[in-house]
Amino acid sequence: MDVAIDCMGGDHGPGVTIPAALRFLQDHPEAGVILVGSESAIRRELDSRKISESSRLRIKAATEVVEMHDPPAAALKNKKDSSMRVAINLVKEGEAQACVSAGNTGALMAISRFVLKMLPGIERPAIITILPTLTGQTYMLDMGANVDCSAEHLLQFAVMGSILVSSVEKIPNPKVGLLNVGEEEIKGNEVVKQASELLKSSGLNFIGNVEGDGIYKGDADVVVCDGFVGNVALKTSEGLAHMLATFLRQEYGKNLITRLAGLISLPVINAFKHRVDPRRYNGASLLGLKGIVIKSHGSADAYSFQFALERALDEVKSGMLNEIGMRMQTLNAGEA
Amino acid sequence: MDVAIDCMGGDHGPGVTIPAALRFLQDHPEAGVILVGSESAIRRELDSRKISESSRLRIKAATEVVEMHDPPAAALKNKKDSSMRVAINLVKEGEAQACVSAGNTGALMAISRFVLKMLPGIERPAIITILPTLTGQTYMLDMGANVDCSAEHLLQFAVMGSILVSSVEKIPNPKVGLLNVGEEEIKGNEVVKQASELLKSSGLNFIGNVEGDGIYKGDADVVVCDGFVGNVALKTSEGLAHMLATFLRQEYGKNLITRLAGLISLPVINAFKHRVDPRRYNGASLLGLKGIVIKSHGSADAYSFQFALERALDEVKSGMLNEIGMRMQTLNAGEA
Repeated sequence: MDVAIDCMGGDHGPGVTIPAALRFLQDHPEAGVILVGSESAIRRELDSRKISESSRLRIKAATEVVEMHDPPAAALKNKKDSSMRVAINLVKEGEAQACVSAGNTGALMAISRFVLKMLPGIERPAIITILPTLTGQTYMLDMGANVDCSAEHLLQFAVMGSILVSSVEKIPNPKVGLLNVGEEEIKGNEVVKQASELLKSSGLNFIGNVEGDGIYKGDADVVVCDGFVGNVALKTSEGLAHMLATFLRQEYGKNLITRLAGLISLPVINAFKHRVDPRRYNGASLLGLKGIVIKSHGSADAYSFQFALERALDEVKSGMLNEIGMRMQTLNAGEA
Repeated sequence: MDVAIDCMGGDHGPGVTIPAALRFLQDHPEAGVILVGSESAIRRELDSRKISESSRLRIKAATEVVEMHDPPAAALKNKKDSSMRVAINLVKEGEAQACVSAGNTGALMAISRFVLKMLPGIERPAIITILPTLTGQTYMLDMGANVDCSAEHLLQFAVMGSILVSSVEKIPNPKVGLLNVGEEEIKGNEVVKQASELLKSSGLNFIGNVEGDGIYKGDADVVVCDGFVGNVALKTSEGLAHMLATFLRQEYGKNLITRLAGLISLPVINAFKHRVDPRRYNGASLLGLKGIVIKSHGSADAYSFQFALERALDEVKSGMLNEIGMRMQTLNAGEA
């Protein structure tokens, strides 16, 4: 199984994506990669490491790059030889079984949707991501692809998320929670109340409402919300974590004595940092497409980008794509 | 100026509310309190501390208590002699200038709205709270009172929040930000996009969109969002903070060496904890009413509850109620 890598995407391009790809190949003898992008830039990175092409490490040239500020529609229309587009094409053509990009999210969504098409009955991809919890981890979607959602959309997210988790994590009947402002059934806005009704008769293991603090408590295996709320929850979390880390650093840096305490605490702080390191959760899946597309954080370093590659591999191996496809057909047939 | 205190509200009742009231009286010689609730329970608390009534410390008996699980409508209809209701009545009658309760939020909103009435043109109270930021603090509303909001609602929140901040914090022209999923103008759901247009021509110091992480960066003095999103952002923050604190405690508790490191770090950790102590931010204001009503966290201890009392005093002193009233009249006249 091969992963097509958009080597030019993200803040750092080949300097990050290629080292990550090489580590990934070392760790997974069963996997191959297709490095997509500027041939000279890719060869320069490989040559500097004295690595040459092989059946597991192929290069596919692409002459253009989708920039972070490119409007998605323009990237779709005008950059037909971009590394992003060519990488997605490889999935379409069956040359690769998944594509990973750290590039422009909007463009990745637009191009994936255009090239790969959506599964029957799904209108737009939903972004699903993993978050650490007190008891392990949880999957949450949608994280920003769909800011105006209907109750039916939320149901689709729940179905797709549930299948992803059962396939990839081997959790037979994942607990699905609906993000809401209270645990009681009467709570929530109109869309969420309707979604709750749909979820109850969905056949999923629907555990009811989950509040914001329930995400990190690990109340559910899959937390479902619209993309506006999901994006706010995720970015608020990032902002709070950053603030707390800054305050802690400031307190430890105050004077000689606190700095000494910090030095002594270093192993503890490093263990703590490792545990919540967002780089280990890098790699959000674009669900609902007829193909596996993973979005890496744009600022990812090589360590982080490798997790996005692992994610792609896990999804390919799980066979979740077929399962989602079949389940969506049943869901649509049931509605018709 | 007197603050009416619902002594029976919250998880702990008089055991917390009365010690907090006494500390508050000590710290603010210009202020008085009216302790509302079960006369015997209140007298027991006062007697145990050898405190007697005075012009600054009055008791107002109320025979009923709104429980945390009481449906708001039932509390409003059936518990006319509840400590919550009687405390709010005191504001209505001009006996007190503000009311503070740690009780059932929904009931507090319903009863406040019924007794005090809304300012012209406002339909429901909005809950505004203070959050710490990298650079100081920010005010955010609505935190859960209004889960289905129109663009006009968001505009009203912005106006009320802006006046509150300029009055209480003496910030002449507070920066108002609209919580959104991106900083670019084209981002957001339909309601937020419309609200952005209204805010641009509102005369407020509207700085545009603020993302989730911008809340804690301190991008704005007032962050406006609907109650669903605000509640999720707040509770997600609580959940994340709790998880991080738990992980840090676990890492420090791992073995003898890490425990020693923890002991040495204690002054640093305590300074850090003080800085982000949510108790210091306790006291959310119910804005839009013809009176000042402050909601304390239900689980507040005496230290925390006193902050809610301080908040009431600050708001009374600021004269913000009149300003909001006048501004809403102008806003409504402009719309008519």
